[in-house]
Amino acid sequence: MTKRSVALNMADLAERAGVSIATVSRALSGAPGVSEETRRKIRLLADDLSYAVSPDAARLARGSSGRVAVVTPDVSHWFYASMLDGIVTGLRGTDLDVLLYEVKEERERRRFFDELPARRQVDALILVALPISDDERRRLDLMGVTVVMAGGTLGDHPHVRIDDVEAGRQATTQLVRAGHTRIAMINSTGTWSLEYAAPSARLRGFTTVLSEAGLDASLVVNRHWGSHGGVEGMSELLSRPDPPTGVVAFSDEVAFGALRTLRRAGVAVPHTMSVVGIDDHHLADMFDLTTVRQPVTEQGLVAGQLVHQILQEGEPTAAHVTLPTQVVARGTTAPPATT
Amino acid sequence: MTKRSVALNMADLAERAGVSIATVSRALSGAPGVSEETRRKIRLLADDLSYAVSPDAARLARGSSGRVAVVTPDVSHWFYASMLDGIVTGLRGTDLDVLLYEVKEERERRRFFDELPARRQVDALILVALPISDDERRRLDLMGVTVVMAGGTLGDHPHVRIDDVEAGRQATTQLVRAGHTRIAMINSTGTWSLEYAAPSARLRGFTTVLSEAGLDASLVVNRHWGSHGGVEGMSELLSRPDPPTGVVAFSDEVAFGALRTLRRAGVAVPHTMSVVGIDDHHLADMFDLTTVRQPVTEQGLVAGQLVHQILQEGEPTAAHVTLPTQVVARGTTAPPATT
Repeated sequence: MTKRSVALNMADLAERAGVSIATVSRALSGAPGVSEETRRKIRLLADDLSYAVSPDAARLARGSSGRVAVVTPDVSHWFYASMLDGIVTGLRGTDLDVLLYEVKEERERRRFFDELPARRQVDALILVALPISDDERRRLDLMGVTVVMAGGTLGDHPHVRIDDVEAGRQATTQLVRAGHTRIAMINSTGTWSLEYAAPSARLRGFTTVLSEAGLDASLVVNRHWGSHGGVEGMSELLSRPDPPTGVVAFSDEVAFGALRTLRRAGVAVPHTMSVVGIDDHHLADMFDLTTVRQPVTEQGLVAGQLVHQILQEGEPTAAHVTLPTQVVARGTTAPPATT
Repeated sequence: MTKRSVALNMADLAERAGVSIATVSRALSGAPGVSEETRRKIRLLADDLSYAVSPDAARLARGSSGRVAVVTPDVSHWFYASMLDGIVTGLRGTDLDVLLYEVKEERERRRFFDELPARRQVDALILVALPISDDERRRLDLMGVTVVMAGGTLGDHPHVRIDDVEAGRQATTQLVRAGHTRIAMINSTGTWSLEYAAPSARLRGFTTVLSEAGLDASLVVNRHWGSHGGVEGMSELLSRPDPPTGVVAFSDEVAFGALRTLRRAGVAVPHTMSVVGIDDHHLADMFDLTTVRQPVTEQGLVAGQLVHQILQEGEPTAAHVTLPTQVVARGTTAPPATT
């Protein structure tokens, strides 16, 4: 009820100010992404219109429930678990508690956002690499709650991520520099109807590097993300009449699967086939996997700190953070045997 | 304040009833571990003494905050992450939200329990394989909040776990049946001052099987739990004048590390050295690791369901659940080359 009336007032305000409801929401809640000029204009208009911020809305804007909701696709998976570890570490020592919401399937995600207004006793939401629909994004904007994206981007909302194009470039460059001329990629797909940005971005990095080197960039297979996707992807590559000598895997888990296929097929690594992953999974070392390290726990850490800073100070020092990736050379890459 | 007065009243009540404060707390909150007779006696006494349950205490006893605290040592680790996944899955569809507390170090655990009374807006606590001190246990009992242990035991509190002695037996039996006569164990230690039960229980299973078979059970090395512990443990075993032909690893991650050492040392697996783990880690298949599967997500699932059932119905159908373990034979075990 309170919620609805606030939303209606915001709509009035947005119409008169000639801006979106999202902008009004951000301006009033002190969220970033709104210029100081716009913020001032909207606040003046709000005073003129006797726009009364309800106690609930004021509490939300002040951020006083003491709880942060973390929304993640699958907490059992290394990537999301490491993010979560970073987030709770980043919030340790603050007064903020973490409410955990796992949304594995499309319909769970929709239900989460449907129920969110009734459960909105949170000061902030951290989405962990979770693509959301335009409708869900509007709903978040209307709630006026602080939203931070970890491991991706979400409009103007604060985020922390890596540059996935660069990660794809670095992995592919590792093979090109070693002298490989026939290089494939095992890319990944998921089960979401909404698109994850990482596969297309990493593919772009792959394609760009090969095109710049004058090499064929068409040898790409797509499999479900995870180690079994890597098992299948490598099997398919080995069955081709002219298999590659080097493979870029979408992730380390895909690479682990690819290595199992190679071991079972008796293909020597790295002598006959080089493999490079992306992640530096905590078990990459056990596979001697050459990879491109992305700082996962650190992304979670920054997301936690972003939320704390926004709730304390109104806005963060830097709202959009991109952390660097770097090659970790281990035993699965070498020059091709034939050169 | 409310908390303290309730505790004092409970102390009065305990003295007059001739039982412990913990029993009073459990009797009034409807927790299990108290006979119906004792419960009735304490309730009558409470009425006589005009023991007024404060609104806060009543709300706690009814379980109406709608939140369950999950306390776990390290959420980035596969085991705890899988437990957590099971717990949130078990609570999905209920009205209960999950508050996550990660306590990686001894002092964090102590601080968590120090701060717990002030933060006790939870209906229940699930401890994930976390050893706690007697003092911390008493504190939990005094709070009268439902406590469930997942992956271990905690006095009379409801729990779900595996039989670690049996898991150790199954792993060792796998090697004895294959004909190995010189079998070692790489066991694990942690950084807690409080003892985890699993290493000593799995060792007992190992020792029992070897003694029953009339074999030497003294070849045991201890290393920090995790893959690097396995790397070191296997290096030490290989450096012995008479190395074993089969090794039981405390966990799959320890086994992964042991396999890396063997690969780098050029020792053929399983021909020269067999390795068996315990867990069935989600990447065990990628290492072709023979292991003893423990149902981790399922333990979390049961813990979540136990909490829900206790909060709904006062007590669970079964308060102490032991889930079965079973051998998963893959490629790292075979008869020894010399027999």
